[in-house]
Amino acid sequence: MKPRVVIIGAGNVATHLAKVLSKSAVILQIFSRNKENADALASQLAETPITTDNIDDIVSEADIYIVSIKDDAIKPLVDKIKANTALWVHTSGSVPMTVFSDKMKRYGVLYPLQTFSRDVDVDIAEVPFFIEGSDVDVQKEISDLARLMSQNIKIADSEQRKRIHVAAVFACNFSNHLWAIAEKILQEGGFDFDVLMPLLRVTLDKAGKVSPAEGQTGPARRGDTGTMSRHLELLDSDTAQIYRLLSQNIMKQYNITPNI
Amino acid sequence: MKPRVVIIGAGNVATHLAKVLSKSAVILQIFSRNKENADALASQLAETPITTDNIDDIVSEADIYIVSIKDDAIKPLVDKIKANTALWVHTSGSVPMTVFSDKMKRYGVLYPLQTFSRDVDVDIAEVPFFIEGSDVDVQKEISDLARLMSQNIKIADSEQRKRIHVAAVFACNFSNHLWAIAEKILQEGGFDFDVLMPLLRVTLDKAGKVSPAEGQTGPARRGDTGTMSRHLELLDSDTAQIYRLLSQNIMKQYNITPNI
Repeated sequence: MKPRVVIIGAGNVATHLAKVLSKSAVILQIFSRNKENADALASQLAETPITTDNIDDIVSEADIYIVSIKDDAIKPLVDKIKANTALWVHTSGSVPMTVFSDKMKRYGVLYPLQTFSRDVDVDIAEVPFFIEGSDVDVQKEISDLARLMSQNIKIADSEQRKRIHVAAVFACNFSNHLWAIAEKILQEGGFDFDVLMPLLRVTLDKAGKVSPAEGQTGPARRGDTGTMSRHLELLDSDTAQIYRLLSQNIMKQYNITPNI
Repeated sequence: MKPRVVIIGAGNVATHLAKVLSKSAVILQIFSRNKENADALASQLAETPITTDNIDDIVSEADIYIVSIKDDAIKPLVDKIKANTALWVHTSGSVPMTVFSDKMKRYGVLYPLQTFSRDVDVDIAEVPFFIEGSDVDVQKEISDLARLMSQNIKIADSEQRKRIHVAAVFACNFSNHLWAIAEKILQEGGFDFDVLMPLLRVTLDKAGKVSPAEGQTGPARRGDTGTMSRHLELLDSDTAQIYRLLSQNIMKQYNITPNI
């Protein structure tokens, strides 16, 4: 029998999960504080579920409740919700599963390590899902739920999940910001970010193959202080500060002594 | 008639360029301070060129000399070389083309914006080559030379090239270092860098499609100080310093006021 699921949230993560789950589960209801968002998501599903923006109207007969809203909004929502004996999971990388423990009996986490947006298609079957359950049976249920979406399921407790999340901030959010800095530097010289794409693709492939620590290159890795000084002259003070700190950290990492 | 080329250097860049050029040019000679490296490169080419580790033995009858050695070694090499009227180019992102001007008449730069290593194959036809010539005719010759290798040729003076190089340091070298930091954080939690690869691929695709500045996500972009504080608790002091500086820079960029 298909599990009956309520999706709480209508953002990018909720949308991607609801779409893929609707193939093998019954989506009973979509809740969003913004009714239009809930309706927009509902309309994308084959069997259009009911929608609500009223917490009190969340149906009680579902098997699974997936809470996919902003991190800081999870606790306030759980506080307001009626307790029941269904399975409750959230999809956050940084919120402990105990956010449910005062209210619910069977709960856990289903954290997909991926960024979801309207602009880029994602093959969800390859996305790693990190799961955690309030007991062994619950964990098994969450694993079964995750397996409806992906082949790549890993168990991670709240502490491990926090590490994964902070690692993702470094690897993705911060890298992306460095790309934005690079884009700005290029644009000031009359070039587009595009010129960096072939280099970035190879750099990422290499990191995946030989590990980023082994694949490190560049002036700091070589201790090439001449190039680093010339680069620093070109940068505004904020950007120079980032250049200096990251170069120093690379040199420290590889026991290179010259300082900039 | 095929141009006759001398390759000065036998590192990764020299090797990749020599291999692709050997299809449409005659590689006369490979010079390297390390004779074994020169021989190793020569042996990979169809018509094995002569090799030398003696600057005085560099042949004088070539049409083109490609200097592909460490940045700081270019000037000392040029100082020792006999002047001639052939075309001289180096492949460095950060050395001005005037490094040749005291000695040579026809010179310039042929800078491939790519990282070359033994581990990862590169489709050189897609690599952007940034070129610069000492005069218009020379620039045309360098453009013709570049076109033997790639379809993606752009003109950049030494100042622009310096910008491109520093942009590449941010986009690739520094990102790679952040991936190395992420790898370490993951390993301490019992996971491999691999778990981040699907997320990284999508993040990079998105940066290429909508520009990195538009695609920025994460706790700093949201001004989510709760998550940032929890992350900082987890990090050693050096890594926390990087986390703090990059988060502050992101918040500043997007006019988000809370500070960490």
